[in-house]
Amino acid sequence: MDAVLELRYALDTFYFLITGALVMWMAAGFAMLEAGLVRAKNTAEILTKNIVLYAIACLMFLFIGYQIMYPVGEGNLLFRGFGIGIGNEHVIGDLGSESHSKASDFFFQVVFVATAMSIVSGAVAERMKLWAFLAFAVVMTSFIYPVQGFWNWGGGFLYESFNYKDYAGSGTVHLCGASAALAGVLFLGARKGKYGPDGQINAIPGSNLPLAALGTLILWLGWFGFNGGSELAVASLESANHVARVFVNTNTAAAGGVVSALIVSQVLFGKADLTMALNGGLAGLVAITADPLTPGAGWATLIGVIGGALVVLAIITIDKLRIDDPVGAISVHGVVGTWGIMAVAISQRAVEDGATFGGQLMGVVSIFLWTFIVSSIVWFVLKLVIGIRVSEEEEYEGVDLSECGLEAYPEFTTSK
Amino acid sequence: MDAVLELRYALDTFYFLITGALVMWMAAGFAMLEAGLVRAKNTAEILTKNIVLYAIACLMFLFIGYQIMYPVGEGNLLFRGFGIGIGNEHVIGDLGSESHSKASDFFFQVVFVATAMSIVSGAVAERMKLWAFLAFAVVMTSFIYPVQGFWNWGGGFLYESFNYKDYAGSGTVHLCGASAALAGVLFLGARKGKYGPDGQINAIPGSNLPLAALGTLILWLGWFGFNGGSELAVASLESANHVARVFVNTNTAAAGGVVSALIVSQVLFGKADLTMALNGGLAGLVAITADPLTPGAGWATLIGVIGGALVVLAIITIDKLRIDDPVGAISVHGVVGTWGIMAVAISQRAVEDGATFGGQLMGVVSIFLWTFIVSSIVWFVLKLVIGIRVSEEEEYEGVDLSECGLEAYPEFTTSK
Amino acid sequence: MDAVLELRYALDTFYFLITGALVMWMAAGFAMLEAGLVRAKNTAEILTKNIVLYAIACLMFLFIGYQIMYPVGEGNLLFRGFGIGIGNEHVIGDLGSESHSKASDFFFQVVFVATAMSIVSGAVAERMKLWAFLAFAVVMTSFIYPVQGFWNWGGGFLYESFNYKDYAGSGTVHLCGASAALAGVLFLGARKGKYGPDGQINAIPGSNLPLAALGTLILWLGWFGFNGGSELAVASLESANHVARVFVNTNTAAAGGVVSALIVSQVLFGKADLTMALNGGLAGLVAITADPLTPGAGWATLIGVIGGALVVLAIITIDKLRIDDPVGAISVHGVVGTWGIMAVAISQRAVEDGATFGGQLMGVVSIFLWTFIVSSIVWFVLKLVIGIRVSEEEEYEGVDLSECGLEAYPEFTTSK
Repeated sequence: MDAVLELRYALDTFYFLITGALVMWMAAGFAMLEAGLVRAKNTAEILTKNIVLYAIACLMFLFIGYQIMYPVGEGNLLFRGFGIGIGNEHVIGDLGSESHSKASDFFFQVVFVATAMSIVSGAVAERMKLWAFLAFAVVMTSFIYPVQGFWNWGGGFLYESFNYKDYAGSGTVHLCGASAALAGVLFLGARKGKYGPDGQINAIPGSNLPLAALGTLILWLGWFGFNGGSELAVASLESANHVARVFVNTNTAAAGGVVSALIVSQVLFGKADLTMALNGGLAGLVAITADPLTPGAGWATLIGVIGGALVVLAIITIDKLRIDDPVGAISVHGVVGTWGIMAVAISQRAVEDGATFGGQLMGVVSIFLWTFIVSSIVWFVLKLVIGIRVSEEEEYEGVDLSECGLEAYPEFTTSK
Repeated sequence: MDAVLELRYALDTFYFLITGALVMWMAAGFAMLEAGLVRAKNTAEILTKNIVLYAIACLMFLFIGYQIMYPVGEGNLLFRGFGIGIGNEHVIGDLGSESHSKASDFFFQVVFVATAMSIVSGAVAERMKLWAFLAFAVVMTSFIYPVQGFWNWGGGFLYESFNYKDYAGSGTVHLCGASAALAGVLFLGARKGKYGPDGQINAIPGSNLPLAALGTLILWLGWFGFNGGSELAVASLESANHVARVFVNTNTAAAGGVVSALIVSQVLFGKADLTMALNGGLAGLVAITADPLTPGAGWATLIGVIGGALVVLAIITIDKLRIDDPVGAISVHGVVGTWGIMAVAISQRAVEDGATFGGQLMGVVSIFLWTFIVSSIVWFVLKLVIGIRVSEEEEYEGVDLSECGLEAYPEFTTSK
Repeated sequence: MDAVLELRYALDTFYFLITGALVMWMAAGFAMLEAGLVRAKNTAEILTKNIVLYAIACLMFLFIGYQIMYPVGEGNLLFRGFGIGIGNEHVIGDLGSESHSKASDFFFQVVFVATAMSIVSGAVAERMKLWAFLAFAVVMTSFIYPVQGFWNWGGGFLYESFNYKDYAGSGTVHLCGASAALAGVLFLGARKGKYGPDGQINAIPGSNLPLAALGTLILWLGWFGFNGGSELAVASLESANHVARVFVNTNTAAAGGVVSALIVSQVLFGKADLTMALNGGLAGLVAITADPLTPGAGWATLIGVIGGALVVLAIITIDKLRIDDPVGAISVHGVVGTWGIMAVAISQRAVEDGATFGGQLMGVVSIFLWTFIVSSIVWFVLKLVIGIRVSEEEEYEGVDLSECGLEAYPEFTTSK
C-alpha cells in the first residue's frame, strides 16, 4: 500500500507541476494579447512590463506573499501574519493524507499571482511609467493579493464564515486584478486623444491583431491548467472525474463566450469584430472560473454565453464612462469575474453544496473594496513620490523610446 | 488492487486531458499558419474564422456531433443515430476495464473536430464570406465529420467490415477536412489576380512568415497530443511503450518531411523555400498519422520523407490546375493524407495486423466521396441562399475591413 | 506489486514524453527569439535555419549520434564507438529497476541535441550561407555534441573520473552550443556595418521584439521540461520531490535573471532595455541548469541574479571585442553557462555530494576545447569547400531573397 501511496503522491505532484507550467504560460498569453492591442510605439514597453511583472511576482510571492496567504497556526481570519515558507518536503513516514510535494504546491500558487498582476498591465498601458508600475507590482504581489487570497484559499473569513465558493479565482484572481487595475486607471487618466473635448470617443486600434489572437489562444490553453489544476488532485477516481469535467466546462464556456460576443458585436456594430470575439472567449473563461466543476456542460456553456455578451456591453459602457482601458481588462476580469462569482449562487449543485447569494456577494464586495482601497493608496503614494504618468511628449513619441530606449518594430511603422 | 485500478484510471484520464490540451493548442497553430500565409488585408478575418470555428466545433460536437459519432446501442454500420451524450461518470464499483473518465474522452474527441474544420479555413481564405464559412462549420462539425468519424472510430463499417486502419486520422480528420476544403474552393473560385487571362500563375506571398513558422511549430507540438493521445491509454507497460514509439515516429516523420521538402524545393526552384519546408514538416506529420505505431523509426522517417516530397509536387500541380488554395491545405491534408492511409498497406507489421490495400482504399474513397458530396451540397445551398463570396471591391480592399470592421496591422502596411 | 511497477513505468514514461515535448517546444522559442532579433530582410532565412536544424538534429541523432552518446558495452571513457540504437522495448518480465520506455528516453535526449544546435544559428545570423550552416548542423548533431555528451551523461571520463556535475547541461548543452557558435563567428566575421573603421560599434536593432519576447517565454516554459525532465524519473516520493524543487528553482532563477538584468541595464544605459531583460531571463535559466536540484530557492535566485547581471556585461564586452553575435548567444549560453557550471562548486549540498572546483573546471575546459577545436576544423573545411559567407550584395539585399527566394514581410518593410 505504501507503494500505491507513493505513486499517488508522484502523480499528483506531476499534475500540479504540469498544470502550473500551463498557468505560467499564461504570462506569454497576457504579453501577446497586450502587445497586440496597444500601438506599435508602446509595444516594447508593455512587453517589458509583462515579463518583469512575472519575475517580480515570482520573487515577491516566494519571499513574502506565500507566507501571508498560507500562514501556519490558527487565529485571526483577516490576517494571520507570516508562515514558515515552503518548508521541508514530505517524507515517506508522514505521507498519510498528503497528496503532493510542498514545492509543487508553491509552484502552482506562484503562477496565479502573476496572472492577477498581468491584468493590471493591460489596463494602464500606453501612458504609465515603467518603474512606477513595477513598484506597484511589488506591493500587489507581496501584500495586496496574498491577504485577500488568504481569505478564500488560506482559510480566512470568506471561506470559514461565508462559505464563499470560488474554485479557481474569478474573484480571488480576476476581480482582484481588475480592482487594482481600475484604481490605477482612475489615478492615471485616459490616454491623450482617447476622449475628445466634445464628448467624442475615439477608437485607438491595436497594432498587431495576430498577436492578440495568439495571446487569447495561449490564455485558453493555460486556463486548462488554471482551472484544471485547482482541483488540487487528480490521482483518485473522484478527482480524476472532477478534473475531466473542469476541462470540458472550461472549454465549452470559452466557446460559448466567443460565439455570443461575435453575435452581439455583429448585431450592435454590423461587423464581426475580432477583438470582441477574443474578449468573449476570455470572458467565458473568467466566468466559469468560479465554478467549473459542478455545472453540467449545458449550464457551463450558458455561463460563458452570458459572459461573452456581458463583456461587449461592459467594454462599451466603461468606455462611455471615459474610463480608458486599452485592452478591456476591467470588463473581462472585473465585470465578468463578478458575474462568474454570482453565477455560483444560481447553480443548483453549488447551492446544494452551501453556496449562497449573500456569501458570494460578500466575496465580491470584500475583494473589491480591499484591493481597490489599498491599491488606491499605493497608486496615490507612487504618484506623489515618483509620479505614475509619462510626460505628454513621451506619450506622443511612444513610451518604448523614453522608457526602454528602443523600438519594437524599428523597420515597420509608417506612422506614430 | 482497487487502489491500483483507481490510479491507472487517474493516470489515463490525466493523459487524455493533457494530450487533448495539446490538440486544442493546434487551433492556435492553424490560426498562426493561416494568418502568416494570407495578405495583411485579410489577416483579421482569417483569425476570426479560426477562433470562431474552434468555438463552433466545440459547441456543435458537444450537443450533436459526439452523439452521432459515438452512438450507444448496436445496429446500422453507416449511421446509427444519436447516443446519450457524455453521460454520467464511472464510479468505483463499475470500473472494471474502464480506463478513463468519460468527460476526458469527450474532451480529447472534441478537439479533433476542430482540427478537421481548421483545414477548410486556410483553403478558402481571402475571398469567402465570414458568416457563410461559419454556417458551413456548423454543418461540418455537427454532421459531416461525425458521420464518417463513426465509420472508423465509432464502430461503423470501415472499422467493422474493412479493417480500415487509421490510427489518429490521416483520413478521418485530415482527408475529411481537405475534401470539404476542395469542395469549397471549387464553388468559390480563385482569388482575383491569382490566375492571369493568358494562363500565367501569379504567386501571392504570405504577409508574415514568422507567424507561419510559429504555426507550424505549434502544430508539430500539438501533434504529439494528436497522435500520442490516440493510443487512448498510457497506464500499462504495453500502452506506455506504444505511446513512446508514437512520439518518436511522429517526430522523425515530421523531420523527414522538412528535409525532403527543402531539398526538393532547392532542386526545383534553386531556393530553400521556407514555406515548402514548413509544409514539408506538416506533410510528414499528416503522413505518419494513419499509423505512427507499428513502423520502426527508419520506416517512419521514410514515410515522412515521401510526404515532404509529395507535398511540394502536389502544391505545384494543384496550382497548375488553377485550384487556388492559398495555404496548400488540400495538398498537405488531402494528397499527403491519402499517402499516409495507403502507406499503412505497405507497412509489414500493419499488414500482419490485418491492414489491406483494399481496406485502406475503401477508407480513402468513402471518406472523400461522403465529405466532398455532402460538403458540395452545403456550399451550393449557402451560395444560393446567402452567397459565399465577398464582392470584388471587398476582396480588393481586403475582407478585414468589410467583414470585421478593423485591420490586423493598421500601422504597418504600406500597400494593399 | 507487478501492477504497481507497471504503473510506475507508465508514469515515468509519460513524464519523459511530456517533458520531452516541452523541450521540443524550445525549438519554437529559439526560432521566435532569433527571428525577432534579426533585421526583417534576414528573417525568413533564420526561420528556415531553425526549423531545418531541428529536423536535422532529430534525424542525425537518431541514426548516428544517440549510438555514440549512449553506447553499449564498457571500455574507453573518451569515445566508445557505436551502440545498438534504441533497441527493443522493455517487457514485463525484465522490468526490474527499469523505469521507463527506451523510446521515451530517446525522445527526451533527441530534443536536447536540437537545443545545442539552436544556439549556433543565432550567433551566425544575417551573413552565413544556409547550406553551409546545415552542413555544420549535420556534423554537430551526429558527432561533436554526442561525443562530449557521452563524457557527462553516457558514462565517459567527466562523469567517471572527475565527478563533473551538470544536471541538465549548462555545459553539455549550452556551453557546447556556444563554443561551436564562437568558432563559427570567428571564421565568419562581423556583419557589414556592425563595426566602423574608426572603432565605433553600431547597434543593429532587432526588427520584431514581440517575437523575441514570445521566444523567451516559450524557452522559459520549455525549460521546465529541460530541467524538470532531467531528474529522469518522477514516480517515487523522492523523485517527485526533486522534480518539484527543480521546477521552483528553475523558475526563480529565471525571475532573478530578469530583474537583475533590467536593473543593470537601467543603471548602465539609463533605460529599461527589453532585450537585456529577455537575455537576463535566459541567463538565469542557463545558470541554474547545471544544478537546479540541490540549491534552496534563495540560493537558486541568487544564481539567476548573478547570471542576469553577468549576461549584460558579457554582451557589452564581447561586442567591444568586435565579436559580432546578433542575439547574444555566446554570452547567454557560453559565459553564463560557465558561471552555472562553476556555481555548482560553491553550492554546499552539491559539494557534499562530491562536486569540486577542479572537476567542474575540467568540464568547462574539455567541453569548450573539444567543441571549439572540432567545430573550427569543420567551419574551416566548409569555408574552403563551399564557402560559409554570403556575398556582400546578398548581405546588403538580405539573405531572405538570395537564400530562400522570398521575403518574411513582403508588405511591411519600409527600408532595407
